[in-house]
Amino acid sequence: MIKTIEWTDEGIRMIDQRKLPTEEVYPIFRSYREVAQAIKDMVVRGAPAIGVAAAMGIALGVRDARARTVDELERELERICQVMETTRPTAVNLFWAIERMKRTFARAKRDGLSMDEIKRRMIEEAQKMYEEDIQTNRRMGQYGAELIPDSATVLTHCNAGTLATAGYGTALGVIRAAVEQHKNVRVLADETRPFLQGARLTAWELMKDGIPVTLISDNMAGYFMRQGKVDCVIVGADRIAANGDVANKIGTYSLAVLAKEHDIPFYVAAPTSTIDLSLASGDEIPIEERSGDEVTRIRDQVIAPEGVEVANPAFDVTPHRYVTAIITERGVARPPYEESLRALVESSERAEPLSAHRASAPHELGDQ
Amino acid sequence: MIKTIEWTDEGIRMIDQRKLPTEEVYPIFRSYREVAQAIKDMVVRGAPAIGVAAAMGIALGVRDARARTVDELERELERICQVMETTRPTAVNLFWAIERMKRTFARAKRDGLSMDEIKRRMIEEAQKMYEEDIQTNRRMGQYGAELIPDSATVLTHCNAGTLATAGYGTALGVIRAAVEQHKNVRVLADETRPFLQGARLTAWELMKDGIPVTLISDNMAGYFMRQGKVDCVIVGADRIAANGDVANKIGTYSLAVLAKEHDIPFYVAAPTSTIDLSLASGDEIPIEERSGDEVTRIRDQVIAPEGVEVANPAFDVTPHRYVTAIITERGVARPPYEESLRALVESSERAEPLSAHRASAPHELGDQ
Repeated sequence: MIKTIEWTDEGIRMIDQRKLPTEEVYPIFRSYREVAQAIKDMVVRGAPAIGVAAAMGIALGVRDARARTVDELERELERICQVMETTRPTAVNLFWAIERMKRTFARAKRDGLSMDEIKRRMIEEAQKMYEEDIQTNRRMGQYGAELIPDSATVLTHCNAGTLATAGYGTALGVIRAAVEQHKNVRVLADETRPFLQGARLTAWELMKDGIPVTLISDNMAGYFMRQGKVDCVIVGADRIAANGDVANKIGTYSLAVLAKEHDIPFYVAAPTSTIDLSLASGDEIPIEERSGDEVTRIRDQVIAPEGVEVANPAFDVTPHRYVTAIITERGVARPPYEESLRALVESSERAEPLSAHRASAPHELGDQ
Repeated sequence: MIKTIEWTDEGIRMIDQRKLPTEEVYPIFRSYREVAQAIKDMVVRGAPAIGVAAAMGIALGVRDARARTVDELERELERICQVMETTRPTAVNLFWAIERMKRTFARAKRDGLSMDEIKRRMIEEAQKMYEEDIQTNRRMGQYGAELIPDSATVLTHCNAGTLATAGYGTALGVIRAAVEQHKNVRVLADETRPFLQGARLTAWELMKDGIPVTLISDNMAGYFMRQGKVDCVIVGADRIAANGDVANKIGTYSLAVLAKEHDIPFYVAAPTSTIDLSLASGDEIPIEERSGDEVTRIRDQVIAPEGVEVANPAFDVTPHRYVTAIITERGVARPPYEESLRALVESSERAEPLSAHRASAPHELGDQ
């Protein structure tokens, strides 16, 4: 069992995803600044994993703060959160996690808790978010597995698996759930340039689980779709706007267009924490531009001329019209997404326990 | 001036494209078997360059054959051609070049030439094919440049430049001609996994010429198209069927679908030697499957788990309905391609000299 991220008393222990698949190492990040740097450098990546890592980093920072009063601690929390906010702009789960940690603090302060009690609450909250993320993924898997036909070949992009979450995965969680239901599922994994999350991470974690996977270059997806070898596409998401537009790893949009052209269902699997109702459309989602070195170098290999101009947008936005359905832990949203997504987000307080979701017909919203 | 390929008395001198852009070396291949291996190993690649390399390799093999009679030499030619035919299955220019060298031999034999004279004829023919290829590309450039608007950003895939031909290039020849006409052209170059022809070769040769180029990952093309930053796509071709279906480097098909979705013209630039009227459609074009190591390793860097299953089709077929026009050295073909391509191929004998093609309105065939 891969432990993507783990709270320890010495700090946050995370598998260093930059080193996979050739090295499996689990360094410990001992301060909130180290955790923030690890998020920025993509030691840990994947929207849900970034959220949990940020929450744990904040809890670590608060625990180790030298504040002498609760008010001082609150000001320190502000500084910690500001550092966390600057790490990665696109995944909304980061901001969701930061807000949740701030609310936890505010509630504890309002309740008149002591500094030690507040610190304990913050650690408990981060750990709770970790546990919840795994449960969320398992629920999402139950809903999503219903959409996967038996003997399906599922194309996925980037890594939306155990390594992108606290565990189980979003898109790969759906595939895992289908396999647990004894469906015969094969995965086509896009290698996902430039960071190679598909080649390095998705292939690695599926092979560990014994789920059949074939690695392809990103530019091969259309070829296999045209040959009728792809039954559906499932990807994760970094942010979903109120209208159902989806920001996800660069290349997702191209896949969605190809899927539409071939009448292949295109599914997005993401927790409701990825839905950002404050944005009317995907045009408002900030797209992170990363260093061109990620494109021109692969580890120490130079693969392009020195000094070449490079573009490296890390994400793209897939307009909602290309998205067949959005699979969440609270059910499957269908168009029109303005209504179905809002209903799912607002169902938060009345969320049912996992067992109630295990019926064979998943709870669906929208025009199905 | 890059010399992709050159006849020398010691053998065929070719730039080793596997080593670019970090090393610029020009080894000499001293026997037809060495030339065949170099084609197979992608020392030289690009349909027109493969054709010229094969012709030169055949001339070299014939020159160095130990045959004592013309009939023995003819049997040796057969063996040489059989070796050449096994190198790369998709590019028809290889088979076109082999046929042309066989016809040259047959004609020389029929004319009663001596063995030495026949050998000289074969060398001259290969050198003529080299010269013709450059002229062909320049003519194609003239026709194609008319299609490029001023201040255009042109997206290209793989390398269809000097390095893919005897010189000047097909798709990049069109771009060069537009630049020579003082059009302000920028190039977006797909890196082109797995062999990275875009990152390693296209970026390198355009930078040498001072043509502005921005390198992107293959999966970013849709992102830039959606932002309105691509004015047209131009690619080369490895084989074009009678109906206009185009086999080209893997990923071309996905680009064509994306171009159609964004109403962006999608052009193919290829000499008429790439048109294979014997095939009714692209479904009949053999697609080369190359070693999975090209996907899992970049030079000595391992980028995927050991033992992972990999697919590596080297080409795909773009159905003609996605192709806006096909630019050849004899004019621009438009749909319906059955008619326009056949007319271009059959115009062979009545081809006009280059100067006659320099009018501002290029010779176009088809429904424009």
